[in-house]
Amino acid sequence: MTTPRAIVVVTGTEVLGGWVADANGPWLARRLGALGVQHVSTVVVGDRPEDLRSALEHARDQGVELLITSGGLGPTEDDLTAQIVAEFTHRDFRLDEALEGRIWKIIEPMSKRWKGISQEAVREANRKQAMVPDGAAVLEPVGTAPGLVVPPTDDDPDRPPTPTVVVLPGPPPELQPMWATVETHPGLLAAIGGATSLHESTVRLFGLPESELANTMRDARAAGVAVDSFEITTCMRGGELEVVSRWTPEQEEAGRAFEAFLVERHGDAVFSPDGRTVDELVLDGLRERGWTVGTAESCTGGLLAGRLTRLPGSSDVVEGGIVSYSNAVKEQALGVDPALLAAHGAVSPEVAAAMAAGARERLGVDVAISTTGIAGPGGGTDDKPVGTVHVAVTGPEGTLSRHLRLPGDRARVRELTTTAALHLVRRVLAGEHDAA
Amino acid sequence: MTTPRAIVVVTGTEVLGGWVADANGPWLARRLGALGVQHVSTVVVGDRPEDLRSALEHARDQGVELLITSGGLGPTEDDLTAQIVAEFTHRDFRLDEALEGRIWKIIEPMSKRWKGISQEAVREANRKQAMVPDGAAVLEPVGTAPGLVVPPTDDDPDRPPTPTVVVLPGPPPELQPMWATVETHPGLLAAIGGATSLHESTVRLFGLPESELANTMRDARAAGVAVDSFEITTCMRGGELEVVSRWTPEQEEAGRAFEAFLVERHGDAVFSPDGRTVDELVLDGLRERGWTVGTAESCTGGLLAGRLTRLPGSSDVVEGGIVSYSNAVKEQALGVDPALLAAHGAVSPEVAAAMAAGARERLGVDVAISTTGIAGPGGGTDDKPVGTVHVAVTGPEGTLSRHLRLPGDRARVRELTTTAALHLVRRVLAGEHDAA
Repeated sequence: MTTPRAIVVVTGTEVLGGWVADANGPWLARRLGALGVQHVSTVVVGDRPEDLRSALEHARDQGVELLITSGGLGPTEDDLTAQIVAEFTHRDFRLDEALEGRIWKIIEPMSKRWKGISQEAVREANRKQAMVPDGAAVLEPVGTAPGLVVPPTDDDPDRPPTPTVVVLPGPPPELQPMWATVETHPGLLAAIGGATSLHESTVRLFGLPESELANTMRDARAAGVAVDSFEITTCMRGGELEVVSRWTPEQEEAGRAFEAFLVERHGDAVFSPDGRTVDELVLDGLRERGWTVGTAESCTGGLLAGRLTRLPGSSDVVEGGIVSYSNAVKEQALGVDPALLAAHGAVSPEVAAAMAAGARERLGVDVAISTTGIAGPGGGTDDKPVGTVHVAVTGPEGTLSRHLRLPGDRARVRELTTTAALHLVRRVLAGEHDAA
Repeated sequence: MTTPRAIVVVTGTEVLGGWVADANGPWLARRLGALGVQHVSTVVVGDRPEDLRSALEHARDQGVELLITSGGLGPTEDDLTAQIVAEFTHRDFRLDEALEGRIWKIIEPMSKRWKGISQEAVREANRKQAMVPDGAAVLEPVGTAPGLVVPPTDDDPDRPPTPTVVVLPGPPPELQPMWATVETHPGLLAAIGGATSLHESTVRLFGLPESELANTMRDARAAGVAVDSFEITTCMRGGELEVVSRWTPEQEEAGRAFEAFLVERHGDAVFSPDGRTVDELVLDGLRERGWTVGTAESCTGGLLAGRLTRLPGSSDVVEGGIVSYSNAVKEQALGVDPALLAAHGAVSPEVAAAMAAGARERLGVDVAISTTGIAGPGGGTDDKPVGTVHVAVTGPEGTLSRHLRLPGDRARVRELTTTAALHLVRRVLAGEHDAA
C-alpha cells in the first residue's frame, strides 16, 4: 500500500509572529514518523479565520489522508478552530451537553478563585468549548479544551472530499498527553490504513563532521548495505551528530547492517548506540562507579552545573560547583596559585588543571570538571582567539584534558564547551587519562 | 492602500522532521512586522520538490505580494530551491558566469583543505550555485550561496501571475545579514509598495497575569484610548509579560496613549518601559552602583550564574558563584550552619538567607543572590510541595527575600526561579529591602 500522508496546521498569532517557538509541529513530526506516516508540511497561521480556512483547503487539495490542527480551542472569541473545522468538513456544529457537563466539573472549582469574572461569562465559555461537529469523536480534555477526531466527509460528489481531521489544543502539556489517545483511536487508524509502526533507532556520535557521514553512506552502499531501503535522518546538534534510522520489520536487516557498519567504521566517535544522551550516560556512569561530581567553571559560567542538574535524580551524584568567573574567585574559592595565573593566564591548560584539582579538594568530590576559555565577542588575542577553550577532568584515576578551538558566537562557544566537558567525563569514566 | 501580505516557505527535512528548530520563520516574521507587511503564514516543507512546488503555488493562489523562501541553496543535488523557483516563475534558468567567478573566489581557498574531494566535483557545485532565473537580481553570498530577488511574472494572461519571490539561504548566520540587503532592495520595495516602516515599542511587566491585561485593554478603550487602531501583541515568557505595540506615524498618538495607560495602571509591574530585558537592567544597575555580584544556588543548579554571564561584558560585575546542590557544599563552601539546616530544612527562608550571606562573604561580592527550592518531580511534601522556592538577595543596604510557589515541571520551576531572582535583584537595586 502507499504511505499515508499528513499535514500539520499550527494556529496562533504569537507562534506565527515569532513570540513563542512552535513546539507542536516538530513534536508531531516525530510522532508521525514513528507511525510510518509521511509528514508533508507544517503550516503556521495566525488567528485570522480566512488563513486557517485556506490552510485546511490547501491540505485537502493535496490529497493527504490526515490533517492535524493545534491551537484555537480556548474559551475566548478568537478561538475558532473547532467551528472552522466544522464548516470545512460540511458538518453541523452542535452543543454536546454531556461534554458541557464534564468540562464544567473541571472549571467550576477554578472559577471560584477568579475575581471580577461573572458566572454568566464562565458558563458561556464552558458552552463554547463543548461545541462539536456532527459525527466527530471527542478526545477528553487534558486542560479544559476537548480535542476532536473528525472523520472524512465524502458524501457529496460535487464537493472535494475532506480528510480525517484531528483537532488538538495548543499548549504542549495538553497536546502531548492527548496524542497518546489519538495514536490508538479507531478514527486515526482508519485514516492511516495499514501504516506500520516503524522501529526508531538512534546512534549518537561525537567529533565526526557531518560531511564525513556522506562518505560512510557511500562506502556502506558499496559494501552491499541497503542504506537506501529505509529512512535515515542525520542532524548536528551542539557538536554531536545524531543518526536516526526508521525501519519496518522487512527493512530491519538492512537497518541493523547499517548500524553495525556505522559502529565498525566510527567506533571511537559512536558514544551512544542505544540513543541515550551524553547527559544520561555521564550520570549513569558516575552512579555505577559510585563517584560524586563537581564543577569549576569560568567561560561556561554555571551552564555545566546547570546541565548536570537538569535531569531528575541528579542529586545522587552532583554535589555542586564553583563558578570562578573572576581571577579572585579562582584564587580564593578554588585555591589556584596567583603565580600560575600570572605566568600562563586564566585561559591555559595549567589553570584548567589547577581549577579541577581545587574543585575536587574544596567540594570533596571524586570527579571535578573545569572549563576556562574565551567565549567572546571580546577578549580574544592573536595567540588565544575567541573560541580558545581548555577543559580538564580530574578523577580518582588521573586527569584528562583538552585544548579546544571552537567556532561560533558567545552562546555557541559556551554550549559547545559544556558538551565537550561532558564527553571528557564520559572518557574518564571509561578509564582514559592523560599520560603522566 | 491595502497592507501588503507575505508568506514564508522554509525548506529542510531536518526542520520539518523536528530535528532542528526553525529559526528563520520567527525571525522573518519580526522583520516583516517591522516593515508593515502582514505575515499570512509560514510553511515548513522537506526536501521533496513537489511539496515545495505545492507550497509556492498555494502562496500564489492566495494572492500575496511577497513570497520568501529559506534553504535549499547548497551545492548538493537535493538543494533545488532556485531551480524550482525558476520553473514556478516561468523563467529560464541560466548560469551567471560572473557570479560563478565570485563564488569560486570564496570556495577556492576552502577547497584546498578538503581531502578526497575531486576538483571537478567542487567546480560542478560552484556552477550549480551560480544558476539564476532569468531577470532575477542576485544577492551576494554571505556564505557560498547567493540569494535572489525574482520579480513578478505576469506576462501571460493564461497563467496566474506569480508574486515577487525572495530566495534566501537556510543557515541563520547567512540569512540574517542577507536580509539587511533585501530590506532596501528595489525589488522588495516595489513588491510591498507603500508599506510604512512601523515603529515597534516593547513594554515588559512582571507579576501580572495575562488575563488581567484583557481587563486593562477594555478599560483603556472605555477611557477613549484607541487601542484597536494599531497592532498590539502580548506574550507570556518565563513569568514575564511582553507587550509589543507597532504603529505608523498616524497611529503614534494612540500608541503612546496606550503605553501611558499601561504604565499608569500597572506601574509596579512594569519594569521595562524601553524594551530592555531584566538581564540587561540588572547588569546595568549593578554597573551604575559600582556593585559586584555573586550567586549561591541550590535548585537552579548553576542556571542563575549561567544567565548572569550570558551577556558579553558581564565580567564587569559578575565575580562568580557557588552551586551548593548538596547540604555538605552548603555547609563547607557557604558556611551554612548545620543546625540551621537540621532545624528548618534546606528549603527554608532561613537557609536562603544564610546561603546569600555566606556567598557575599566567601566570594567577596557586594550583592549575593541565593535560590533553594524543590524543582521536582520528586522531593515534594505536603508542607513543601514541588514548586516551593525561597530566594534571597543580600546587598550593602539590606536583604530582600521571597517565598514562591511556582507552577510547572522541573525545567519550568528552575527557569521561573532564575527569572524571579533577577527581578529581586532589580528591586534591591531600586532600594527595596525586607523590614528588619
